[in-house]
Amino acid sequence: MARLLRAATWGLFPWRGYCSQKAKGELCRDFVEALKAVVGGSHVSTAMVVREQHGRDESVHRCEPPDAVVWPQNVEQVSRLAALCYRQGVPIIPFGTGTGLEGGVCAVQGGVCINLTHMDRILELNLEDFSVVVEPGVTRKALNVHLRDSGLWFPVDPGADASLCGMAATGASGTNAVRYGTMRDNVLNLEVVLPDGRLLHTAGQGRHFRKSAAGYNLTGLFVGSEGTLGLITATTLRLHPAPEAIVAATCAFPSVQAAVDSTVHILQAAVPVARIEFLDEVMMDACNRYSKLNCSVAPTLFLEFHGSQQALEEQLQRTEEIVQQNGASDFSWAKAAEERSQLWTARHNAWYAALAMRPGCKGYSTDVCVPISRLPEILVQTKEDLNASGLTGSIVGHVGDGNFHCILLVNPDDAEELGRVKAFAEQLGRRALALHGTCTGEHGIGLGKRQLLREEVGAVGVETMRQLKAVLDPQGLMNPGKVL
Amino acid sequence: MARLLRAATWGLFPWRGYCSQKAKGELCRDFVEALKAVVGGSHVSTAMVVREQHGRDESVHRCEPPDAVVWPQNVEQVSRLAALCYRQGVPIIPFGTGTGLEGGVCAVQGGVCINLTHMDRILELNLEDFSVVVEPGVTRKALNVHLRDSGLWFPVDPGADASLCGMAATGASGTNAVRYGTMRDNVLNLEVVLPDGRLLHTAGQGRHFRKSAAGYNLTGLFVGSEGTLGLITATTLRLHPAPEAIVAATCAFPSVQAAVDSTVHILQAAVPVARIEFLDEVMMDACNRYSKLNCSVAPTLFLEFHGSQQALEEQLQRTEEIVQQNGASDFSWAKAAEERSQLWTARHNAWYAALAMRPGCKGYSTDVCVPISRLPEILVQTKEDLNASGLTGSIVGHVGDGNFHCILLVNPDDAEELGRVKAFAEQLGRRALALHGTCTGEHGIGLGKRQLLREEVGAVGVETMRQLKAVLDPQGLMNPGKVL
Repeated sequence: MARLLRAATWGLFPWRGYCSQKAKGELCRDFVEALKAVVGGSHVSTAMVVREQHGRDESVHRCEPPDAVVWPQNVEQVSRLAALCYRQGVPIIPFGTGTGLEGGVCAVQGGVCINLTHMDRILELNLEDFSVVVEPGVTRKALNVHLRDSGLWFPVDPGADASLCGMAATGASGTNAVRYGTMRDNVLNLEVVLPDGRLLHTAGQGRHFRKSAAGYNLTGLFVGSEGTLGLITATTLRLHPAPEAIVAATCAFPSVQAAVDSTVHILQAAVPVARIEFLDEVMMDACNRYSKLNCSVAPTLFLEFHGSQQALEEQLQRTEEIVQQNGASDFSWAKAAEERSQLWTARHNAWYAALAMRPGCKGYSTDVCVPISRLPEILVQTKEDLNASGLTGSIVGHVGDGNFHCILLVNPDDAEELGRVKAFAEQLGRRALALHGTCTGEHGIGLGKRQLLREEVGAVGVETMRQLKAVLDPQGLMNPGKVL
Repeated sequence: MARLLRAATWGLFPWRGYCSQKAKGELCRDFVEALKAVVGGSHVSTAMVVREQHGRDESVHRCEPPDAVVWPQNVEQVSRLAALCYRQGVPIIPFGTGTGLEGGVCAVQGGVCINLTHMDRILELNLEDFSVVVEPGVTRKALNVHLRDSGLWFPVDPGADASLCGMAATGASGTNAVRYGTMRDNVLNLEVVLPDGRLLHTAGQGRHFRKSAAGYNLTGLFVGSEGTLGLITATTLRLHPAPEAIVAATCAFPSVQAAVDSTVHILQAAVPVARIEFLDEVMMDACNRYSKLNCSVAPTLFLEFHGSQQALEEQLQRTEEIVQQNGASDFSWAKAAEERSQLWTARHNAWYAALAMRPGCKGYSTDVCVPISRLPEILVQTKEDLNASGLTGSIVGHVGDGNFHCILLVNPDDAEELGRVKAFAEQLGRRALALHGTCTGEHGIGLGKRQLLREEVGAVGVETMRQLKAVLDPQGLMNPGKVL
């Protein structure tokens, strides 16, 4: 239907060239030739297998292939591609690593997918200023490899080896956010190609200061805009001093409440914990099996501390006191890099460990975030709901931020089960909203949470967002069907 | 001229009531009666002395009185006032403590000044969630008095005892930003009355989560918007654990370069310094005289460390090593609360110490912020320019952020000198821009830096800001003449 409408719209403007003879969602030959004229013939594909690879992310949202995929080599090409699509009324979908979890790359109205991964240079590294400028093809792991031995690192870690520009577009965060903040806190500047092809530097070209009060915070507006306002072609990031020493620890608790209470007490005691992750007993069992750990099958915290040797001793001692007051058992340290790596690899592989609980199934991850004081009740209720639902699911979360994920396993061919998963996720989202929380801490709204967004920010909030979208993308061509 | 235009516009819409018979910038009686009907007669004033009190801040910008001042008692009244002004095409200027430094409250097109200080309740304190909701009349000091003994505090400290909603509107920061961030980092949610009177909760009503990826970051858009997009009627702030112990320190350096190099090395060593303030020798001399200090008259750093006793020992030891490697002398601690208080009172009174250097003069404070690596060169050049200019000025800065102020003393009746001060400030702004910096780290654009903003963010940046302003405030009534 959407495609027919689009075709009809094009039909109204045959004088605009290219597409007057097109049929349905297929791009006409002239338009494809125009794309090739911008990026070169080998950097455009309309092959179905390529389009399908670009029509899905790692979520359960069904594949919606774009009409073409193009790989620009530089920002000038991105600008010309956007201008071309804009003139022709063709939707534009930015694409990075495809590791999103909310269907953000699904081409629900067709259009041109702009795969930005060929632009993969680290453009500028300012060690003294703790900043770096990266193109969209640079992933967080690639950046940290580049920074090795520099004394600096980039801490935001959503698990997947996502592109940093994609992480900016999503407003991603992950395990280190409790200490180092989210992408919202660590993006200093963005280079954005606007829908009509104009180039915007959100904080001014080449600028990388630590703070500013100059005009409206355009950087903040584009971080988390999920490709719906423009294409991010470079990101200036804030770097942090690499920790002198790192210690990881795990501890098992008699109850969810005890684990969360410990989290609140650790934060109140101002222990500068770098990571504090909760895993429920189902998740721990799955991780033990998948990653050959030998942890207690109980509600568990994984922690990590960064600092000088001396500071670490104190942080560990304080934390141990707090968790023991809350009834923890098995508080164990892992100072050696190998041991730490095993622990955090297991945490990062929690998604795959969960999937392995029911082979052949797909995973769907919820993403609510609530004020920390409300975490115990929502976690307990969620576990009760999970048991009552008959669904297979486990819980893992960035509890220092009040954010947790319920990883639900679903047979993608079973429409009834998929329906129950969606209903469960929506109910959980509403429960978070009722507790003053948000329906998404870090995955974004994408396709599936647009109704929850309306409930979260209210009519005036959504209307304000719509106004901003309409003024920056008057034709509604940037990643249509997402967020709003 | 602006007032005549406005009067002309009103003349076009006599059927809209109230003001068809008005003359120039004076509000007609019916309109004033309508204001009184909203807030009560005793909460509206058109007396010149009151209007003049509300037409200026602490800057050298000349007084531009509004046509009336109103004191709403609650958000419903603010909403009705905005709707009333909107229907009549009357400009709206929000007013807090009047402690701004960029002429943000000057009523350059007349209109109604909405003094929000009668709304002074702390609406909600969530100790476990580290958050608080305050109305516009609550100042940062009042909040911290309220929080005493709670184990929490709010660290953003611009010096003046400003209202927290005003600080949000300005995007303020100050001495603690190097560790705790600016208002941009510490505002979780805003209640905003839009120009037409509708109520917006930027992160959804009652929400106070630590992070979110739900839709466009409306909170970030309104923080730092300087009253040009709406009236902030409540702010939800992030609180921090009160430090267990505090130590202050001072040390004098042989050169500006040595002081700034020490700053960079302290940050690189990941010492979690809470405050790191630079004062040049002129400023030190003035502070010694004004605040009865006995510090060396040399480029100096004032530092403060927060943490456990044990952590402080280590922070101090590391810092002492670094500053001594950079040739510091007189590194001295102040652990006792009284001694610390004397030091920071002197720092907070730097503005008045500077003014006392030339009695009868007014002060003008520049506010550039550059990448830290560029601080030494811009500070050295600025001092050379100061000497060459014949102006009286001193330098003080939040060097951990790359932000510094040159406090220039000017005889407000001497137009030639005022011109030289403005020229000096503009040249300094351009120098900061050339070094990838910003023309304002924390004071805002206000009236005087609109040209510099254009140079800073470029044509597309300013055009984007204009679009946002136009869509949220289509009649251009919110604090007109500021920012853009």
